[in-house]
Amino acid sequence: MSKIIINKLCIIGVGLIGGSLARALKKAGVVGEVVGAGRDVSHLKKAKALGVIDQFETDIPLAVKGCDMVVLAVPLGAMQSVFEKIAPVITNDMIITDVGSAKASVVKAAQAAFKTIPDTLVPAHPIAGTEKSGVEASFPELYENRRIIITPLETSSVAAIKKVHNMWQACGAEVVETSVEHHDEVLAATSHLPHMLAYSLVDTLAKMDAKKEIFDFAAGGFRDFTRIASSDPDMWHDICLANGDALVTMIKKFTDDLQLLSTAIEKNDSTYLKETFARAKKARDEFCENKN
Amino acid sequence: MSKIIINKLCIIGVGLIGGSLARALKKAGVVGEVVGAGRDVSHLKKAKALGVIDQFETDIPLAVKGCDMVVLAVPLGAMQSVFEKIAPVITNDMIITDVGSAKASVVKAAQAAFKTIPDTLVPAHPIAGTEKSGVEASFPELYENRRIIITPLETSSVAAIKKVHNMWQACGAEVVETSVEHHDEVLAATSHLPHMLAYSLVDTLAKMDAKKEIFDFAAGGFRDFTRIASSDPDMWHDICLANGDALVTMIKKFTDDLQLLSTAIEKNDSTYLKETFARAKKARDEFCENKN
Repeated sequence: MSKIIINKLCIIGVGLIGGSLARALKKAGVVGEVVGAGRDVSHLKKAKALGVIDQFETDIPLAVKGCDMVVLAVPLGAMQSVFEKIAPVITNDMIITDVGSAKASVVKAAQAAFKTIPDTLVPAHPIAGTEKSGVEASFPELYENRRIIITPLETSSVAAIKKVHNMWQACGAEVVETSVEHHDEVLAATSHLPHMLAYSLVDTLAKMDAKKEIFDFAAGGFRDFTRIASSDPDMWHDICLANGDALVTMIKKFTDDLQLLSTAIEKNDSTYLKETFARAKKARDEFCENKN
Repeated sequence: MSKIIINKLCIIGVGLIGGSLARALKKAGVVGEVVGAGRDVSHLKKAKALGVIDQFETDIPLAVKGCDMVVLAVPLGAMQSVFEKIAPVITNDMIITDVGSAKASVVKAAQAAFKTIPDTLVPAHPIAGTEKSGVEASFPELYENRRIIITPLETSSVAAIKKVHNMWQACGAEVVETSVEHHDEVLAATSHLPHMLAYSLVDTLAKMDAKKEIFDFAAGGFRDFTRIASSDPDMWHDICLANGDALVTMIKKFTDDLQLLSTAIEKNDSTYLKETFARAKKARDEFCENKN
C-alpha cells in the first residue's frame, strides 16, 4: 500500500512537464486527486481523456480550492498573473511550487503578486524535458534519475520544503537544494548559454548565401549540436528575459574565451589549440562517464 | 558478379575513415587487393587480422607500388610528408586521393611535394565519421547515404575524377563536386565552427568555480550539444591550422550575431528574440526533415 503524499493536487499548465508530473505521481500511487487548470478547455479535455488529470477547471481560484499542493507549470512570463489569481484564496496548508527554468524571476513575480511571500511557497526546477511539448508528449518516467533543484526561500517553512521534496522523490528524481541566485548562475552556464549558441549558430548559417549547401553538407555532429535550436521559441524568449543578467554575463565570458581561441588559430598557436581541445575533451568525457 | 573498380588499392592511414573505406569496397566486391600503409606495425597487424586489409607495408613508396588507387587517410598535418614519399614513384595510372577535412591545405601540400601537381590527383572529403577513432571502430556501412565532396583541380583528368567518383559511389555514398575554396568555406561554417563552439563552451565551463555543479546540473541537451567536444584534439588542431582563414572569418561572423542577441537580451527586445529563435527553429527543423 502506497503512502499518499498529496491529497488533492492542482497542476496549472498541463503540458509536457506538468503532465509528466501528474502521470508520475499517479503511477507511484502517492496522489489522491489531480485537478488540471489552464485556459484552453480542449487541451484540458485531452489531458483528462488521456488519464493525466481527473478533472479540470479554467477558473484558477476555483481550481486550487481544497488543494494541498499547487504546481505552476506555466511559461515564466505567465507566473505573476497566476500568482495574482491564487493570492486571494491561498491557505496555510496549500503548498505552492513551480517548475520554471529561472528562479529569481519567479520570486520577483511572487513578491509582486503576494506582497508578503507565503511560507508555503517553495520554488523548484526539474532538470528534465524533451524537445517535444504538450500533454500528448508527457510520460510518467520523465523524472526518473533526473535532478530536481529546489530553491527554498528564507520564508519557506520546513514542512513545505519537505512536501515538495517528497513529491519529486516519489517521481524517481534526485532532489538537490541550492539558492535562487546560484541556480540561476549555474543554469545560465549549462543550459541557457548553450541554447543561445545553438539558436545563434543556426541563424547565422541560415542567413548565409551558401545556406542550401551548408545545410546539405552538414553531418551528424551538426544535427546533435543544433538539436536544442528546435526548442520552443516563446519559452526561450521568456527564459532570456527572466535570467537576462546571468545569461549576458555568461555570453560575455564565452565570447572572450572564443576570441582567445580565434587569435590562437590566426597565430598558428599549436600549444594553445592542443591544450584547449584536450582540456575540453577530458572535461566532456568525464561529464559523460558520471552521467552513465 | 561485381565489377572490379580498383585492382590494387593502397590505404595510407588505416583508421576509422581509411578502414571503413577498405571494408566498404571489399563488401561491394569492387576491389582486388588492399594494401595498408602506416608507421605502426602493431596497428597494421590488427587491421590485417580484422580482415580490413590483405597485406601491409610501413615503407610508403613500396606500399603504393603497382596500385591503381592510393588513398591518403592521414591527419592533415601529415599530408605533405606522405606526398613527398610517393612523389618519386607515382605513375600515370596511379590515381591519388585523400579524405582531409580541409582541401586548400591539401592542395598546398601537394604543390610543395610534387612541384607539378599530377593529373591523377583528385582531393576528396567524405562527410562521415563517428566520435570514435581507430581501425577497430571501422565498419563497411559508414558511407552509406553520406555525402562525399570531391574537389577536382584544374589539373585533374576526367578519368581520375571518374575513378574516385566510382569508388565512393560503390560505398553507397552520394558524391557531389565543388571547388576547393567553396568546400573550405562551407565546412568552416557547418563543421569547423560548431566544433570550436563546443570545445570553447566546455572549456569555459570547466574553468568556472562552480564547475562541479555545472556539470552535475547539465541535462541531456548539454550532452548532445557538446558531443563533438569529445573529438580528437590533434585532428582538430590540424584542421584549425589547415582552414584557419575561413574558420576565423566564420568565428567573427558568429560572434557578431551573438553580440546582437546579447544586446537584445539586455534591452528586453522581445521582437528580436522571438524572431531570431523562430527563424532558427524553422531552419533547423527543415534541415532535419531533409535528412530523414
